[in-house]
Amino acid sequence: MNVTIRGQTRHFRTVTFDAARNSVLLIEQRLLPHEFKIVATKDFQETAAAIRDMVVRGAGAIGATAAYGLAQGARAFRGNDTKKFSAHTENVFHVLKSARPTAVDPVNAMLDVRREMARGRSVAEKQSLALAAAEEFANEDVEHCEAIGRHGQKLIRNGARVLTHCNAGWLAFVDIGTATAPMYAAQAAGKKFHVWCDETRPRSQGATLTAWELAQQKIPHQIIADNAAGHLMQRGKVDLVIVGSDRTLGRTGEVTNKIGTYTKAVLAARHKIPFYVAIPLSTIDWNLKSGFQIPIEERSENEVLGAWGVLENGKMKNGKRAYVRVANPTSGACNPGFDVTPPDLITGIITPAGIFRPKNLWKHRKKLGFNG
Amino acid sequence: MNVTIRGQTRHFRTVTFDAARNSVLLIEQRLLPHEFKIVATKDFQETAAAIRDMVVRGAGAIGATAAYGLAQGARAFRGNDTKKFSAHTENVFHVLKSARPTAVDPVNAMLDVRREMARGRSVAEKQSLALAAAEEFANEDVEHCEAIGRHGQKLIRNGARVLTHCNAGWLAFVDIGTATAPMYAAQAAGKKFHVWCDETRPRSQGATLTAWELAQQKIPHQIIADNAAGHLMQRGKVDLVIVGSDRTLGRTGEVTNKIGTYTKAVLAARHKIPFYVAIPLSTIDWNLKSGFQIPIEERSENEVLGAWGVLENGKMKNGKRAYVRVANPTSGACNPGFDVTPPDLITGIITPAGIFRPKNLWKHRKKLGFNG
Repeated sequence: MNVTIRGQTRHFRTVTFDAARNSVLLIEQRLLPHEFKIVATKDFQETAAAIRDMVVRGAGAIGATAAYGLAQGARAFRGNDTKKFSAHTENVFHVLKSARPTAVDPVNAMLDVRREMARGRSVAEKQSLALAAAEEFANEDVEHCEAIGRHGQKLIRNGARVLTHCNAGWLAFVDIGTATAPMYAAQAAGKKFHVWCDETRPRSQGATLTAWELAQQKIPHQIIADNAAGHLMQRGKVDLVIVGSDRTLGRTGEVTNKIGTYTKAVLAARHKIPFYVAIPLSTIDWNLKSGFQIPIEERSENEVLGAWGVLENGKMKNGKRAYVRVANPTSGACNPGFDVTPPDLITGIITPAGIFRPKNLWKHRKKLGFNG
Repeated sequence: MNVTIRGQTRHFRTVTFDAARNSVLLIEQRLLPHEFKIVATKDFQETAAAIRDMVVRGAGAIGATAAYGLAQGARAFRGNDTKKFSAHTENVFHVLKSARPTAVDPVNAMLDVRREMARGRSVAEKQSLALAAAEEFANEDVEHCEAIGRHGQKLIRNGARVLTHCNAGWLAFVDIGTATAPMYAAQAAGKKFHVWCDETRPRSQGATLTAWELAQQKIPHQIIADNAAGHLMQRGKVDLVIVGSDRTLGRTGEVTNKIGTYTKAVLAARHKIPFYVAIPLSTIDWNLKSGFQIPIEERSENEVLGAWGVLENGKMKNGKRAYVRVANPTSGACNPGFDVTPPDLITGIITPAGIFRPKNLWKHRKKLGFNG
């Protein structure tokens, strides 16, 4: 999407590849929203480090980064020995995979690349196929998000007030995003609307990343404390909720997403406000039979006990935010990272293949990429 | 309640009076939870400044501070001329009143003191009656909170997990508090229980003040992001919610309280978790006929866009917290300070006169201090 730097507006993807320099180009997300910077990794180890150290985050974005990283590693190989090449790329694969061991997207993306590479006969051919496959993965990620936007923008009427939680925006994908895709498409269709941007404590991805995206895209928005959504709904100031999902159960329609999503869904149901979840097909889990089987990550207490930001001068120090301890110093915290929203609270799941009632995902599983 | 300083545990009230020095003693609440300090005001102007500058906050606490401040001002008068004394005390009254112009408690408290003073014939007698009336106001505030504790502690069974929002604790009153009163009484009765302490963004009174109180009182507790309550309720980890109220409508049972209270009530209703509101009688509004008539204060955007806390060394700088800007620098915020919870979501209102269904407040209005 667009970023404006010193008055110049340019289009950027979250992840791209510089073939001449054999380098993965990433928006350095840890500096956002305070600084915008593109970093170029010089080899696959640096790419793995960027995934591990959260320079890049979000399902689609780390998938594409890993795919490019595998191509980058493959292309760095010198020589014609396909056996040695194969051993080398296996090592690259494992280094990149272990950068974020619990994520599924990097592995799936790299399996695509590896499958394509296998078709090549020479090292040079394999190297070229690897890059083409990585490019294809990234382009497909964008196309899927575009399709979500096409389906979802119909839900945003002119003058609507849309609430979103956390960041399922273009920074989490290669471009466009999922929960934000209907907004960007509605804007492109000339609609005017206002976005309520949940702060999303404790990590504040709504106040930092989503707000930054919307500001760059010039979409009118205001950040609200997570506590304020109920009040705004009660006063008739929210027309629609769209959020993303980390994992959606194909068999039950239950949606795992950032902590606080469930609360917004309960509030929306009480006020009869449509509640939509926008997802790429890759986040549908066709195996689990109950949301209670989903492990809920317990995260660091420090996230709840304080906050990261910039001090008076608005600048980071050595590329780092300052941490302030807000809470009582002798108290601890409980910090579940995600929650599970049951299907009865969800109006529809917006996918690249169309919008479905959550209970109907299983019925439409073939269309939704299930091959079991 | 108790405060432990360097291993020594002592009992403190939020507000007391040093008759020998004619000084109001206040816990300096702006330093909490990072420093505990008692400040002594040397005259009524300093007492007014302490109210204005939020050294002391909370309905009962500022009521008692104003009552003591009026007595302090009266006692500083030199001479026997009752006319001049009367003009002097009227001035004291107005200075203290204008320290927090929208609050009702300071005015009501000072009207009590003034009524008592009027009974005296000499200046000396009036001065002595003023202090006695202020002491009585403070003691009654404590007795009312004790009564709330007596009624409310029955709701906390052994092993319960109790959720509270914001700070309706002893720091907001002279002692004991309202939402916290049942907890302190249950603890005194030997019950064991756990408190979930909502952070309460954007001002984080739960993470700072309530957590500090509970820690001082050695009540097991954990701070949670406001987003986490729904998840904990869904997983069966919350047995009871108790909150305070800034204004409760006697005619309808609607409860105004810190933003986010309504959300917790909606969540509790979905999970059939009892939701109680603990209030002193002074916060019942017998006039308004609808919660929609209650003006909702729109507060500073900076509260939502950042956070106040202490940096790495855990110390404040010149008695001040550091402010970090968390949010995207080009985004704004919407910051309603309060919300209104309808009576159908409230199990009961805990008052000094007993526990009532919110719809029955009007029926019991005589018992609840309505004289209209």
